Amino acid sequence: MTAIVADLLSDTLTRPTRAMRHAMASAKVGDDVFGEDPTVRALEERVAGLLGHEAGLFTPTGSLANQLGMRLHVAPGQEVVADQAAHVVRAELGAAAVFSGITSRTWPSDRGLLDVSGPMSLVTTGVGPYQVETALVVVENTHNFGGGTVQPLGAIKEVRAATSAVGVALHLDGARLWNAHVASGVALADYGREFDTVSVCLSKGLGAPVGSVLVGSAELMAAARVWRKRYGGGMRQVGILAAAGLHALDHHVERLADDHARAARFAAACAEAAPGVIEPSAVETNIVVLDVAAAGWSAAAFVATLLEHGVRAYATSPRTVRLVWHLDVDDAGTDAAVTAATTVLRSTPPTP
Amino acid sequence: MTAIVADLLSDTLTRPTRAMRHAMASAKVGDDVFGEDPTVRALEERVAGLLGHEAGLFTPTGSLANQLGMRLHVAPGQEVVADQAAHVVRAELGAAAVFSGITSRTWPSDRGLLDVSGPMSLVTTGVGPYQVETALVVVENTHNFGGGTVQPLGAIKEVRAATSAVGVALHLDGARLWNAHVASGVALADYGREFDTVSVCLSKGLGAPVGSVLVGSAELMAAARVWRKRYGGGMRQVGILAAAGLHALDHHVERLADDHARAARFAAACAEAAPGVIEPSAVETNIVVLDVAAAGWSAAAFVATLLEHGVRAYATSPRTVRLVWHLDVDDAGTDAAVTAATTVLRSTPPTP
Amino acid sequence: MTAIVADLLSDTLTRPTRAMRHAMASAKVGDDVFGEDPTVRALEERVAGLLGHEAGLFTPTGSLANQLGMRLHVAPGQEVVADQAAHVVRAELGAAAVFSGITSRTWPSDRGLLDVSGPMSLVTTGVGPYQVETALVVVENTHNFGGGTVQPLGAIKEVRAATSAVGVALHLDGARLWNAHVASGVALADYGREFDTVSVCLSKGLGAPVGSVLVGSAELMAAARVWRKRYGGGMRQVGILAAAGLHALDHHVERLADDHARAARFAAACAEAAPGVIEPSAVETNIVVLDVAAAGWSAAAFVATLLEHGVRAYATSPRTVRLVWHLDVDDAGTDAAVTAATTVLRSTPPTP
Amino acid sequence: MTAIVADLLSDTLTRPTRAMRHAMASAKVGDDVFGEDPTVRALEERVAGLLGHEAGLFTPTGSLANQLGMRLHVAPGQEVVADQAAHVVRAELGAAAVFSGITSRTWPSDRGLLDVSGPMSLVTTGVGPYQVETALVVVENTHNFGGGTVQPLGAIKEVRAATSAVGVALHLDGARLWNAHVASGVALADYGREFDTVSVCLSKGLGAPVGSVLVGSAELMAAARVWRKRYGGGMRQVGILAAAGLHALDHHVERLADDHARAARFAAACAEAAPGVIEPSAVETNIVVLDVAAAGWSAAAFVATLLEHGVRAYATSPRTVRLVWHLDVDDAGTDAAVTAATTVLRSTPPTP
Repeated sequence: MTAIVADLLSDTLTRPTRAMRHAMASAKVGDDVFGEDPTVRALEERVAGLLGHEAGLFTPTGSLANQLGMRLHVAPGQEVVADQAAHVVRAELGAAAVFSGITSRTWPSDRGLLDVSGPMSLVTTGVGPYQVETALVVVENTHNFGGGTVQPLGAIKEVRAATSAVGVALHLDGARLWNAHVASGVALADYGREFDTVSVCLSKGLGAPVGSVLVGSAELMAAARVWRKRYGGGMRQVGILAAAGLHALDHHVERLADDHARAARFAAACAEAAPGVIEPSAVETNIVVLDVAAAGWSAAAFVATLLEHGVRAYATSPRTVRLVWHLDVDDAGTDAAVTAATTVLRSTPPTP
Repeated sequence: MTAIVADLLSDTLTRPTRAMRHAMASAKVGDDVFGEDPTVRALEERVAGLLGHEAGLFTPTGSLANQLGMRLHVAPGQEVVADQAAHVVRAELGAAAVFSGITSRTWPSDRGLLDVSGPMSLVTTGVGPYQVETALVVVENTHNFGGGTVQPLGAIKEVRAATSAVGVALHLDGARLWNAHVASGVALADYGREFDTVSVCLSKGLGAPVGSVLVGSAELMAAARVWRKRYGGGMRQVGILAAAGLHALDHHVERLADDHARAARFAAACAEAAPGVIEPSAVETNIVVLDVAAAGWSAAAFVATLLEHGVRAYATSPRTVRLVWHLDVDDAGTDAAVTAATTVLRSTPPTP
Repeated sequence: MTAIVADLLSDTLTRPTRAMRHAMASAKVGDDVFGEDPTVRALEERVAGLLGHEAGLFTPTGSLANQLGMRLHVAPGQEVVADQAAHVVRAELGAAAVFSGITSRTWPSDRGLLDVSGPMSLVTTGVGPYQVETALVVVENTHNFGGGTVQPLGAIKEVRAATSAVGVALHLDGARLWNAHVASGVALADYGREFDTVSVCLSKGLGAPVGSVLVGSAELMAAARVWRKRYGGGMRQVGILAAAGLHALDHHVERLADDHARAARFAAACAEAAPGVIEPSAVETNIVVLDVAAAGWSAAAFVATLLEHGVRAYATSPRTVRLVWHLDVDDAGTDAAVTAATTVLRSTPPTP
Repeated sequence: MTAIVADLLSDTLTRPTRAMRHAMASAKVGDDVFGEDPTVRALEERVAGLLGHEAGLFTPTGSLANQLGMRLHVAPGQEVVADQAAHVVRAELGAAAVFSGITSRTWPSDRGLLDVSGPMSLVTTGVGPYQVETALVVVENTHNFGGGTVQPLGAIKEVRAATSAVGVALHLDGARLWNAHVASGVALADYGREFDTVSVCLSKGLGAPVGSVLVGSAELMAAARVWRKRYGGGMRQVGILAAAGLHALDHHVERLADDHARAARFAAACAEAAPGVIEPSAVETNIVVLDVAAAGWSAAAFVATLLEHGVRAYATSPRTVRLVWHLDVDDAGTDAAVTAATTVLRSTPPTP
């Protein structure tokens, strides 16, 4: 097997740095099921503060943070609406329906970009016992399958105003909100305050090995804590992991700009090599989605050929390939990825 | 309170005729939980035959028939896709999520009309354990919230071909399939054979007091029978109700053409009275949806004013009002509805 | 196949009488989903009044009435406790867990007879987020698998006092409460008032073809009405069925004493023929459970042999057989059943 | 607040040792969602091997390991049976019902001790579509609420034989199986092989901060892996935590004998101080359950008074108090606990 020179499969791949490992090894811990882990508490308070919310809750995954966030707002039989490519409806294995009895409808969007007309074409309230009541709108920022898109704060505010007017809650899937913050310069709390609950991940761009945080009101977080235990997500001396998160907040937020610059450089090179596979201006953060079909490739063949060059990527559909920059891919790795991708794009695709 | 002269709230309002009551009163019955009711068996076999399927199952409601149909094809955590205004996602109170753990995504459509690009923009298969797998597409024919739209057989066949190619099942919500059949002249079995399961209602246009039938393979219906009992839908001497259904099949199918003609006449009159509230050619069956906002009315005010004229209608959204023809509305009732609606449309709406 | 001379499989087998059919055929009806069926309303009010409660709700089955009753009191993740042989845990196909997320624990009992120590050995409250909270105790009266046992009013009152003291609700599965009332002379309301909700069946001893009624407070019944629709149990012109229920209340309650007398006569004959298969004093109502193993028979062989004599019965376990008296079994049928059962009990069982 | 000299609240309180922290800090890791974490794989294989099974799966908690184990064997609407005090029915917040639709019945037991008659009084199979089908029996070893009871291997084998004969699966909640192994001398695999799936915890007696392992066939574990992700339990560079587990297996199993000896010493002292509060021979492992009511104390008052002496304990019921020995309680801590408990037991309880 070819040695991997740039692993762009996902930003979930990051391995803890030496300094982060040191922080974990020296963390003060307690039994978090009994609320006695000081490092977890510190992390929860810090993230809540950053996002302009009252309280936080550590979870083993971003999926669980989203699941808890949704069920806090939506009773069984009520509805969540999201865009058709949202992580909560595409990549959480139907958990909101299976575990919380939440039904969903979706609107189409361009690269996941939010526009108030999308959710409001679906939101339905006051329809008595005969129709489904919408209880929640979910916004994803940045938008993963949309290609790392940053949601405009203006659009968010419009959705907030429209949903508030009819008593519908708003949840932010902020798995990569750090990237949106760094790319747009909008303060985390300025995003956070528009939502009733927000989930953020420590294990993607920030480079912690495990963990996410859900934030909201103290009352909501107390309810989420009980449900976290019911899901089997109530861990014990989890300050070990929280210490990594705190370290990441200190050291790994601003450097996301490097990932963005590398992704942009890669996208520009691909656009030059094969016009049509990517519009460089669409790359706002650390994710590049190439429409390799525009260069005659199937996603599967492109991914396989790229791997022969030591670069891992992910086929998100039969015609698109996603590449994600992160802590463990430096300039040299980016150079290698550029060379590999442009070489492949310029070469003749295999006949299917 | 004004006497009701035309009750167009829904075609679910029909009361059994004298002849139908006689059929019920003289029905042979047994305990259907033990499979011993001969009249239910006769109805199930007859409906299955009409729709080109192997077996049928009587259910107390169309909602339950749809719920059973969906869960036969979709495992917890898998996905059903439907149009944004489909009855299964808008008007069954989220039952597919609550009881079966089925997650859903939706596509927008014009008046509910099916086009192969709608479902196929969402259908996702072979995405391993990381993304949701689509297991079922639901088609509604005629389309209730779309205004009684008849789905083109060609579009259905295209969807069937595209879903079969990727191993995705197809369910028909045929609550008003009788209307589609009478309006289009397409044989019931020609519709039915394109689907893995079909639900039809006896209690809407057909005028039976209670009941629906789900059809599919004998194996699927055996599984549905167990789940029907689990839902609390396994009734005893239900041949009383099945007899009404058999009577309706004998006497109330072809007469749906009268309902369609009356609805068309009403729509034409409204279009003349207030151009823009309805495109008469859009009225294909027994449902008229007026865009009363085009005449300056809110749906709520229009419905309330119409009621003062003895005509009941249903506000389906803040700007639209639905009127439905059925067995208990004759030419005189239609005349009254025409007079009432055109009078209101021509009058000045109340200032909000 | 031998002609059936006494069908003692279940009291669900009863067929509507001529007079009951007439009542159904002439019932005034409306669309009950919109709350407009006068006959259903009359039935719901009458049953609520009989049981000392504020409001009632018609359901297609007793299982659904119990499911609704339980979910009104128990949030997902909370607990219901019942005896090990209760219908709600043995014969409703796990519906409380599947559809309502209700977990359950059970206590052993002698013939289903209630004693305060049974439920109170399990009821657990105030255990914070670490243990399951009990929300409901279910009592079954008469007790089906216990052999038609009548629950002592004193025991019920003790359970009521004990559960009220800790804020736990009480539901009565009164599918055969009519039999308990007739056998004990206790007024229906005297039973009913001890419970927060009560379900009763019209389709068993009372002889209606279909239907049950749940009673409780008006607020609870309003919530149950929405959930009934979600379960697919919201039927339309269901006054047809309600009329049968009203007729049964007028004509078929007091006659249950005949069923009880016939069951007692049968039990006495069996006890004489094969001492040990039944303690005659244990037969309090219309159900006889024979321990045929005490006479050397397997339940399956006994049921098969009895069927050759034209008598249908039901094997409730490998060693027990249940026989149930009802409206369609008269003295002659009972004579035939006595002759058949005593003949079989006195004969030599087949070698296994 | 008094300084805690012996924290006997639970063995979940253990903090990682310096050596364990070092093992975590130097662990090789990868993205376990993609199956690429070598340390997790090593742990899963090692635990599977120890328990005589083919494959393993790391989970964030023992609750999740049990939930996954149960749902592998039990379809929605089927039944699990367990003893009335089992962790899976008392302390997992109803998760099996909420998330998997699993219904349950329970048998009473003496201190949680298994006897074949308990489960087999409930197991029901082959009852067609009318009654609930038992799919799984759960055994807990050692039994937490039973007081750390070790299940006799003979009883386990009898249950295995009886359940296998009727096609019912067997799951072991082995959160403290390590204690059973050390106390009884029975090999882990000799326990493990009797079950279809086994869960074990690394975060209780073994002293790891977080984590459990589920073992079974490779096919079952592959299915469990998908469901683990759906529950939000699919973590990334989780080798950090697995390294702690591997360290614990190397260093913390045999030392459990010390915990057992200390618990026994404490129990003997209490029995001497207040005969009736504990039968010393009932203390088989690291858990002591005092019936403080036998000495005139309420559990709440006893726990509060003990805390004033610097000893934390847990009221498991209004009359019983549980104390648990573990890695962070040494001989000196045990001395302090003995002094505190005997002093309190000999003193006069507060008047309620």
